[in-house]
Amino acid sequence: MKAVYYIETPYEPEAAAAVLAGEQSSGTFVAVPGETEALKQRFAARVEKVTLLETVQQPAIPGAISKTGVYNRARVEVSWSIENFGYNLPVMLSTLQGNLYEITQFTGLKLMDIELPPSFGAHFKGPEFGVEGCRKLTGVASRPLIGTIIKPSVGLSVTETADLVKTLAAAGIDFIKDDELLSSSANSKFEDRVAGIMKVINKHADKTGKKIMYAFNLSGEMDEMLRRYETIVKHGGTCAMISINSVGLSGVKKICDQRQLAIHAHRNGWGMLTRHPLLGIDFRAYQKIWRLAGVDQLHVNGIQNKFWETDDSVVASINACLTKLFDQQNVLPVVSSGQWGGQAFETWQRTQTQDLLYMAGGGILAHPMGPAAGVTALQQAWSAAVEGSTLQEAAAQYREFGKSAEKFGGK
Amino acid sequence: MKAVYYIETPYEPEAAAAVLAGEQSSGTFVAVPGETEALKQRFAARVEKVTLLETVQQPAIPGAISKTGVYNRARVEVSWSIENFGYNLPVMLSTLQGNLYEITQFTGLKLMDIELPPSFGAHFKGPEFGVEGCRKLTGVASRPLIGTIIKPSVGLSVTETADLVKTLAAAGIDFIKDDELLSSSANSKFEDRVAGIMKVINKHADKTGKKIMYAFNLSGEMDEMLRRYETIVKHGGTCAMISINSVGLSGVKKICDQRQLAIHAHRNGWGMLTRHPLLGIDFRAYQKIWRLAGVDQLHVNGIQNKFWETDDSVVASINACLTKLFDQQNVLPVVSSGQWGGQAFETWQRTQTQDLLYMAGGGILAHPMGPAAGVTALQQAWSAAVEGSTLQEAAAQYREFGKSAEKFGGK
Repeated sequence: MKAVYYIETPYEPEAAAAVLAGEQSSGTFVAVPGETEALKQRFAARVEKVTLLETVQQPAIPGAISKTGVYNRARVEVSWSIENFGYNLPVMLSTLQGNLYEITQFTGLKLMDIELPPSFGAHFKGPEFGVEGCRKLTGVASRPLIGTIIKPSVGLSVTETADLVKTLAAAGIDFIKDDELLSSSANSKFEDRVAGIMKVINKHADKTGKKIMYAFNLSGEMDEMLRRYETIVKHGGTCAMISINSVGLSGVKKICDQRQLAIHAHRNGWGMLTRHPLLGIDFRAYQKIWRLAGVDQLHVNGIQNKFWETDDSVVASINACLTKLFDQQNVLPVVSSGQWGGQAFETWQRTQTQDLLYMAGGGILAHPMGPAAGVTALQQAWSAAVEGSTLQEAAAQYREFGKSAEKFGGK
Repeated sequence: MKAVYYIETPYEPEAAAAVLAGEQSSGTFVAVPGETEALKQRFAARVEKVTLLETVQQPAIPGAISKTGVYNRARVEVSWSIENFGYNLPVMLSTLQGNLYEITQFTGLKLMDIELPPSFGAHFKGPEFGVEGCRKLTGVASRPLIGTIIKPSVGLSVTETADLVKTLAAAGIDFIKDDELLSSSANSKFEDRVAGIMKVINKHADKTGKKIMYAFNLSGEMDEMLRRYETIVKHGGTCAMISINSVGLSGVKKICDQRQLAIHAHRNGWGMLTRHPLLGIDFRAYQKIWRLAGVDQLHVNGIQNKFWETDDSVVASINACLTKLFDQQNVLPVVSSGQWGGQAFETWQRTQTQDLLYMAGGGILAHPMGPAAGVTALQQAWSAAVEGSTLQEAAAQYREFGKSAEKFGGK
C-alpha cells in the first residue's frame, strides 16, 4: 500500500516525512521497550520518496513556525505493509489519514493518491453495477444518462412528488433523485414516497419498456437504511442514494454489500475535505476508497458549476472515476451543479466520454417550456456536442435547447 | 435547530448568508415551480442573525474574487424546522454541513456550534456510561482515570500485549487502549487478543476487585464490529474503541445503541476537519453530534500536546465535553498526545476538573524506572496538582514523578 501526500513544512521535508511515517505505524514520541528492529522492519511505514517542490513565506495552515521564514512544499510517498490493517477499510483510512493532520511539523498536508495492492482487487468486489450496470438498468446504450433532482428539495408531498415524476417520465428522463436534504419527513414518509413513486415508474415501464432509475435517499441509521433498502427492492426500485460523508464508510459498505440496488453516492460535505489546496484529501484518493466500498455512482460537480470547484478539477475527477481499478466496473461520474446543457459542449470536448450521469435540477424543472422540454434540451445538447456542433449552432438548430440557452445561457 | 457559522465572503455577509440558507433547504439556482410561499414558510432555512466581524485582504480558501479587494468575516446564525430531517443524524449533518462548503460565495466557512431542540433530548439517549458510568466501571471515584496506549502501536503479538497488560495492571493502571492503527492483524487477531488480555484483566480483577477498562479497537465493517462487540462482552470486557471519523456516523450509532460497553471515541482524522480556522467544524459542534450518537469517551488532545492544537483549544474542548447536554451523562474527555504528567498542573489550573481520562503512552511505557513507575508518576502528578503544588515541588517530593520530569520535562 502506497500513499502520496502533498505537504508543507518549516523543516526539511525528509525529517517531516519521517515523523509522518513514525506516527502512522509503530512509533510514539519517545522510544519504548518492545519496538525492536525486527518489528520495525516488518511493520514500520517507509518513506519511499521525497520530491521538493516550491517554497513559500507564509504557512498554509497553523503549525510549527519556521525559523528561517521559509516553508517547504514537497511530494512525499509513503508505503505500508498491508499486514498492518488487512482488508479493513476504516483502519486503512485511519492509517492513511488519522493523526497525520494533527502533526505540528506540517503546515499543510493533503492525501493525493493511494496505490492499492493487487490483493485488494481480489478481496473487494467494487461496484456491483457501475457504468455498465447503470446503463443496463436504464436502457441507455451510449449517450449520457440524463437525470434530475426533485425540487423544491424539501417540502413536496408524496402526491406532488409522484406527479412530478410522472411529468418527467413522460419527458423521457433516465434518472431522478431525492434531494440529499430529504430522507423521510412528516409530509413525505420514506415508505409512502417509494410506493407512490414506484407506482408511477412501474406503470411507465409497463407501457414503454423503460424503467426510470430513482435514487431514494436512504441516509439514516443503519437498521433503518437496511429496512428502507428492502422497501425499495420490494417496490421494484433499482437505486438508493447515500450521503456518503454523513453516513460514513462502515455504513455505506454494509449497504453496498447488499448488491441488489445501484448505489448513488452523494458526496455532500466534500468541500470541507478538499477545498483547501493543502489540507484534506484529493478526489483521486477519495474515489478509490468509495469504489472499494462498492458505490456505483459518484458525484463530481460539473463544468462551469455554481460551486467553487474549477473545471480542471472536475475534468480530473471524471477521468479518475473512469480509470480502471483492478478489473472492477468503473464508477459512473455524476455531473451536477448549475447544469442546463450548455456545459455539455465543453464537458464532451474535455473528457471525450458519454459515460456520465448528467444531472440538471433547475435546468430541467425551470425550463421555460416545462420539464419535458428541459429533458429534451439536455438530450439535444449532448447529441449536438458529440456531433461537433458548438453551443450557438445547437441553440439555433434545436428549439428546446435554444430556449434553455436564452434563459440560462446568460449566467 | 440552530447553527452558528464563522464565514468569510467577498460579498455582503447578509447576501452570502441568504445563499447558504437557500442551498440548505428548498432552493436551487433558479426558482422552480412548486416552491410556493407556504412551502418556503414551513421548510426554508432562516437567517436569524448576521454579525459582521473583521475584514481581510486575502481570502482564506479559494472561491469568488472580491471586486473591492475586501473579504468580510461574520458570524451567521441559521435556523431550520426539524421537520426537515426529523431525528435522522446523517441527514441533519448533510443539512448543517453538506454542500455549504462548496458555495463559491464563501471564501471560508466553519460550523461553530449547534443548538439542538429539546425534543432531541427526549429522542436521543446520549452516552450510556459517560463520566459517571466510566468511573463506576473502573472503580475510580474522583481522581482522573489514568490510561495508556499499547505501544509499539502495531506489531506486538497477543502474548506480548497480554504481558504488557499484566505489568500495567500490577502498576495500578485504570484504562488501556489499542492503538487506532491496530484492529486485527495476522499476529494479533482480534478474538485472540480479547481472550488473551481479558484473561489477565479478569484474573487481576478477581484478585484485587479492580477491573481495568480495556478499549479494544472495534473499527471495521459493520457486521464484523457487531461480532467483535459480542466477543468483548463474552469475555467480560467493558469497553470498545472506534475511530469515529473512519467508521462514520451510522456505524458508530449502531454500535453505541448496543449499550453494553463504554464506547471510546477516537477522533483520528479530526485535524483535517478543524485545523484551518475558516474551514470545517469546531469541536463545540462536533462533540454534540457524537454525544447524540452515544459515545462515552471522546478525545480532546492535551495541554502542551505534541500536535498542532493550542492549549486554549484543548481547554475549550474539555469544557465542551463537560457541559451538560439535555439531562444526558457528560462524555468523558480523553486527554492525550505527548502527556507525561507534567501537564497535569496546567490542566488542573485551567479546567478545575478531574473528570478526565488522562492518557500517556510513551510517558508511562518509557519511564526510566519502568511502566509501573510511569503510572505512579501520573497519579503523583495529579494528586500534587490538585493539592496546589507546582511541577517543581512535585518533582522534588515524589521519586517516580521526579524521574519523569528529568526524562520528559526538557521537551
